[in-house]
Amino acid sequence: MTTQPAAVLEAPPVGTTMRALVKETAAPGAAIREVPIPEPGPGELLIRVHAASVCGTDVHIERWDPWAQANFGPPPMTFGHEMAGVVVARGPGATRIQVGDTVAAETHVVDWTCYQCRTGRAFVCQHMRILGVHIPGSFAQYVVLPESNAWAYEGLSFEVAALQEPLGNAVFSAFVEEVAGQTAVVTGCGPIGLMSIAVLKKAGARAVYATDINPERLEMARRMGADLVLDGRDDVVERLRAETDGNGVDIVLEMSGSSAALHQGLGAVTNGGRVSLLGTHSTPATIDLSKEIIFKGLRIYGITGRRLWETWYRTTALLEEGLDLSPIITHRMPLSDYAKAFDLVASGHAGKIVLLPQEEQL
Amino acid sequence: MTTQPAAVLEAPPVGTTMRALVKETAAPGAAIREVPIPEPGPGELLIRVHAASVCGTDVHIERWDPWAQANFGPPPMTFGHEMAGVVVARGPGATRIQVGDTVAAETHVVDWTCYQCRTGRAFVCQHMRILGVHIPGSFAQYVVLPESNAWAYEGLSFEVAALQEPLGNAVFSAFVEEVAGQTAVVTGCGPIGLMSIAVLKKAGARAVYATDINPERLEMARRMGADLVLDGRDDVVERLRAETDGNGVDIVLEMSGSSAALHQGLGAVTNGGRVSLLGTHSTPATIDLSKEIIFKGLRIYGITGRRLWETWYRTTALLEEGLDLSPIITHRMPLSDYAKAFDLVASGHAGKIVLLPQEEQL
Amino acid sequence: MTTQPAAVLEAPPVGTTMRALVKETAAPGAAIREVPIPEPGPGELLIRVHAASVCGTDVHIERWDPWAQANFGPPPMTFGHEMAGVVVARGPGATRIQVGDTVAAETHVVDWTCYQCRTGRAFVCQHMRILGVHIPGSFAQYVVLPESNAWAYEGLSFEVAALQEPLGNAVFSAFVEEVAGQTAVVTGCGPIGLMSIAVLKKAGARAVYATDINPERLEMARRMGADLVLDGRDDVVERLRAETDGNGVDIVLEMSGSSAALHQGLGAVTNGGRVSLLGTHSTPATIDLSKEIIFKGLRIYGITGRRLWETWYRTTALLEEGLDLSPIITHRMPLSDYAKAFDLVASGHAGKIVLLPQEEQL
Amino acid sequence: MTTQPAAVLEAPPVGTTMRALVKETAAPGAAIREVPIPEPGPGELLIRVHAASVCGTDVHIERWDPWAQANFGPPPMTFGHEMAGVVVARGPGATRIQVGDTVAAETHVVDWTCYQCRTGRAFVCQHMRILGVHIPGSFAQYVVLPESNAWAYEGLSFEVAALQEPLGNAVFSAFVEEVAGQTAVVTGCGPIGLMSIAVLKKAGARAVYATDINPERLEMARRMGADLVLDGRDDVVERLRAETDGNGVDIVLEMSGSSAALHQGLGAVTNGGRVSLLGTHSTPATIDLSKEIIFKGLRIYGITGRRLWETWYRTTALLEEGLDLSPIITHRMPLSDYAKAFDLVASGHAGKIVLLPQEEQL
Repeated sequence: MTTQPAAVLEAPPVGTTMRALVKETAAPGAAIREVPIPEPGPGELLIRVHAASVCGTDVHIERWDPWAQANFGPPPMTFGHEMAGVVVARGPGATRIQVGDTVAAETHVVDWTCYQCRTGRAFVCQHMRILGVHIPGSFAQYVVLPESNAWAYEGLSFEVAALQEPLGNAVFSAFVEEVAGQTAVVTGCGPIGLMSIAVLKKAGARAVYATDINPERLEMARRMGADLVLDGRDDVVERLRAETDGNGVDIVLEMSGSSAALHQGLGAVTNGGRVSLLGTHSTPATIDLSKEIIFKGLRIYGITGRRLWETWYRTTALLEEGLDLSPIITHRMPLSDYAKAFDLVASGHAGKIVLLPQEEQL
Repeated sequence: MTTQPAAVLEAPPVGTTMRALVKETAAPGAAIREVPIPEPGPGELLIRVHAASVCGTDVHIERWDPWAQANFGPPPMTFGHEMAGVVVARGPGATRIQVGDTVAAETHVVDWTCYQCRTGRAFVCQHMRILGVHIPGSFAQYVVLPESNAWAYEGLSFEVAALQEPLGNAVFSAFVEEVAGQTAVVTGCGPIGLMSIAVLKKAGARAVYATDINPERLEMARRMGADLVLDGRDDVVERLRAETDGNGVDIVLEMSGSSAALHQGLGAVTNGGRVSLLGTHSTPATIDLSKEIIFKGLRIYGITGRRLWETWYRTTALLEEGLDLSPIITHRMPLSDYAKAFDLVASGHAGKIVLLPQEEQL
Repeated sequence: MTTQPAAVLEAPPVGTTMRALVKETAAPGAAIREVPIPEPGPGELLIRVHAASVCGTDVHIERWDPWAQANFGPPPMTFGHEMAGVVVARGPGATRIQVGDTVAAETHVVDWTCYQCRTGRAFVCQHMRILGVHIPGSFAQYVVLPESNAWAYEGLSFEVAALQEPLGNAVFSAFVEEVAGQTAVVTGCGPIGLMSIAVLKKAGARAVYATDINPERLEMARRMGADLVLDGRDDVVERLRAETDGNGVDIVLEMSGSSAALHQGLGAVTNGGRVSLLGTHSTPATIDLSKEIIFKGLRIYGITGRRLWETWYRTTALLEEGLDLSPIITHRMPLSDYAKAFDLVASGHAGKIVLLPQEEQL
Repeated sequence: MTTQPAAVLEAPPVGTTMRALVKETAAPGAAIREVPIPEPGPGELLIRVHAASVCGTDVHIERWDPWAQANFGPPPMTFGHEMAGVVVARGPGATRIQVGDTVAAETHVVDWTCYQCRTGRAFVCQHMRILGVHIPGSFAQYVVLPESNAWAYEGLSFEVAALQEPLGNAVFSAFVEEVAGQTAVVTGCGPIGLMSIAVLKKAGARAVYATDINPERLEMARRMGADLVLDGRDDVVERLRAETDGNGVDIVLEMSGSSAALHQGLGAVTNGGRVSLLGTHSTPATIDLSKEIIFKGLRIYGITGRRLWETWYRTTALLEEGLDLSPIITHRMPLSDYAKAFDLVASGHAGKIVLLPQEEQL
């Protein structure tokens, strides 16, 4: 996907409706619908969406799992959140970003006034609203976004630009402490896990190990630069101890949401090491706190979202330095093929899938 | 207890045997026995023990619980580890500390050569041996200790000096991040929890809350300076939210080893806050990682031991500044009253109990 | 000064003009003038000023020193920046703070869009404008302030509330690293130095030393809690080494802007210690970098402004905990006595002077 | 240089004397002398020196500059400190490292008992003795080193192994804060500056700029991976501002000891950025503290030595990851060519020069 001429990019919408993927009712399913193009309010931008990648969350919403039931909506509402596109209009008071600028979405809309937002922790804002979960999302030809959530970028394809949001999760997870010269294991090689591997290597990790139970993903992990990939059904702890002179690994990035993988990470990490938890767990985990955390003197970091905007600066820097996400993008398809995309994600036979809303017929 | 004249303190042992509290067999129980006074080897000190306080661990050893079965010994061996006394002899190569110096024990004997010890994390040494658990302990009239584990101090009573070791746990737990101006809750008001309250107050915490289910301990928490004490059977989370303008507390020090208290701490902590885990859990905890840790963006610290020697310098400083541990010491008794002491600790009707080995008859 | 009834506080201005202290021309001097009451623009507040304390910067502006010539204005413009008052009107879009709220000013107006502002370092915004330096100030009966620069507070007198801004400098300087259990020296006992002493004590510093060459200030330092005060003309380095077992002090807060004091601080600090530089130097300093900084392995922090808003939360917390600034406030006078106030500040025979614009006749 | 067979390596010295480069008197000059092979005392190792690289400090000692007059000796004493070799004998109590092991020297011999050594800051030990400055050095066929100062390594040539010591300076300077995704300038492209460039690139710096006034060194900087090299006589500040969108660079590593370079670094660094000072300054620097440090909110780090042993672990890791120091080694010569080596270093027409004591005739 190449950057299109600015003149074309800046053209205002033709007509007053657009195609969007809508969760219509509080039940499984979704549908492409012709809906009004939204109007940007004060401080908001209207963005033509050129790439909208699929996150596991989107599948949860479509399938209407318990998390979605508790958090989404209310329906009917468009979903989708990872996106990149071009600004085509601005609401009153939006002045920093120009019409024609290419932007990606920081998908967490925060209030900037709570205790967390005022002390450098907007990623855990007390009144967080998430694009495509609590407010209309980006599986659509146009989306409205607060200007304060738009990250203007240059020099990236739309599909890679859309991936900056999950890449930011990987970057945040990796850099809660320093990386250079350290050994690391990434447990779980979904898209964010795969990105983490590349991030760790770029930042000078001594060795990066990766685990998963899906051979396709382990193969992708190898392509992203993992020094060693391990099947999660093997004795991961023993293997990683052996690889590290018996010390264990310095860094664990838990990206699977699997209890088994978590225990392997806690077993493999060196005494006094650190563990980032990003993968979301659908069921509670049972942990021997004394043995697995306390007597090992571990530091455990719960990771959600991205630091505004330290993470985005770093993400941009890493992409500029040549961090290559292209091996992760396994499929590109029109928005209307959403059902196929969701099935692929659910099956585990895909890396990242990018939906292309502009390939629809208006 | 007052400091005795130096001439008396420095006198070498009379005779060749001493009284000691010995775990004789791999079964419940213990006994006072007349055993040989140990000889200090290379780099070791012989210390006359003037105060030996009782830790919950000692009760576990006496009762021979599963942890003790897995870790202690082998019997027969003297146990006990929190202590203060006077150096009466030195082995070859021990030169830094003088005969006649008053010392307390850093009870974790580390190898100083493993990866952890060589990177500032000796508290999680890969080859840790603990005084009174893996090597003969200080429930005795004399104990041998590596000079590198002796903390020379001045100006403290023996009983307070012995408490520097658990105080160090409290200090380490509190200061993994900064304290001044922050709100904190201590869950669990055993001796280390009680010490933590005083430490937090001394360091300028905005407010210190404390929870327990034992009214005697809550009363002691109040005496140690807690701004508010809460019965752990009440709705602690709601109460703490209300006390903190709905934000939650900045700091949780989990000192109980209770799953219920842990969940209250995780529920009460503010988004992006931090939790120190010190209380040891005898059974695994079931945690909703996504909700309780990840989406809250928490930092969890497993705490064991003390930083060598940053923690001890800070502990000393706080005591010099007037940190008062005396309300915690509820009982003092001869070593031979050990059974009564252990029963009191097990019952929860005691703060800290100090055993006095020099009050025995030789 | 007591809090006035809310009804009175919230009353809008009577008439359309107010008294203000105006720098009229690019020359020494200033004058009380009757000027129009300003109108709050979008996102701005109109505040009735109840207390406006005098900072050394204000004297520089009045005296028109080289710094003022290079930075102020342009004249004619009202100056003054440390302030507290009551919101009496809001411009469009200002919604967070209510009419009637008591507020103090964060005096650094930042752009929130530069690299620094977007990475947690707004205190060094690339496009900083300072109240009373670059935009009209608070030596006036009313002042306009961006709502995003107003810190709503409760429970403080106006005069103490106005001091939160310089107190924030002290807090930022002290807490660049942890304080509890450390020894510290404050070089320079002007108002911010004096506040620093109280802050360090509140946060559990082991000992706080203070130096100045003005005996009145040293006396105030003692009242603020300094454990030892030293005349800067004595051998400060030797005295502080002796006080600290030869180790030197852990923390230096350089609050004087004096080269001599700086060298004393660098000489007295322990190897591997840390130094905060806040006092502004009117002439370059000559430093033996190898000996004074490099071979000592020091960390030097340049401090300006306050962290938005971590510092303000901490400042509020310390005041709530009982930090007492009242010994610092030596004079209170009507705004029209400004000349006397500036002379007192210049002479060094004052702590903090608070001007009271509402004691003027309209 | 290839690793020799272990059997040969482990052979004890033949004879009782060795060749060594000796500073004979307190005056310029030095001489190769036949001196007794030293005996390892308690806790010490005897090492056959296979590579001894030349540091600027060695030239200062040979030339007998004011620093050398104040610090060296007393003469007669062998000098030299950067080294690698093979352990051939152990004194009593040295047990961790084996005869036959290849080792490099941590050249700072610390007391392990002072306040700094006991709080993780041994690099600024109060009683530091430096190999080849205060105790006999490694410009010799054999050297005695405390076992606690020997870093056992594998898989490196002797000449690269000897460079681990200055590489550690570079690593310490770079990693006082995180590097990945940041822009950096290295001012001064002597050997440690050149190593820093490679370290920063390996750790994922966004861009690495380098300055010097010696074109040969700038050419080496380019070979080490610098993205842009600048002649220090050009307008470095303006160029670096232009390269960084006007923001300035995030990281300055001052490796020159030149006042002019320091001011360029302070001018080029972004507000709120950080500066490591390693280059030693022979004359005091004149700094406008307010403008260059305080109002910019900088963090300045004085760097000396290496963290024991965090820095060495990281150095080893970076070498394992492929960090290539070979472009820096421009000359190899027998120990007896020392005069030529020192002249080359003094002239600036050399990168690193490695002396080879085993190529001498016994």
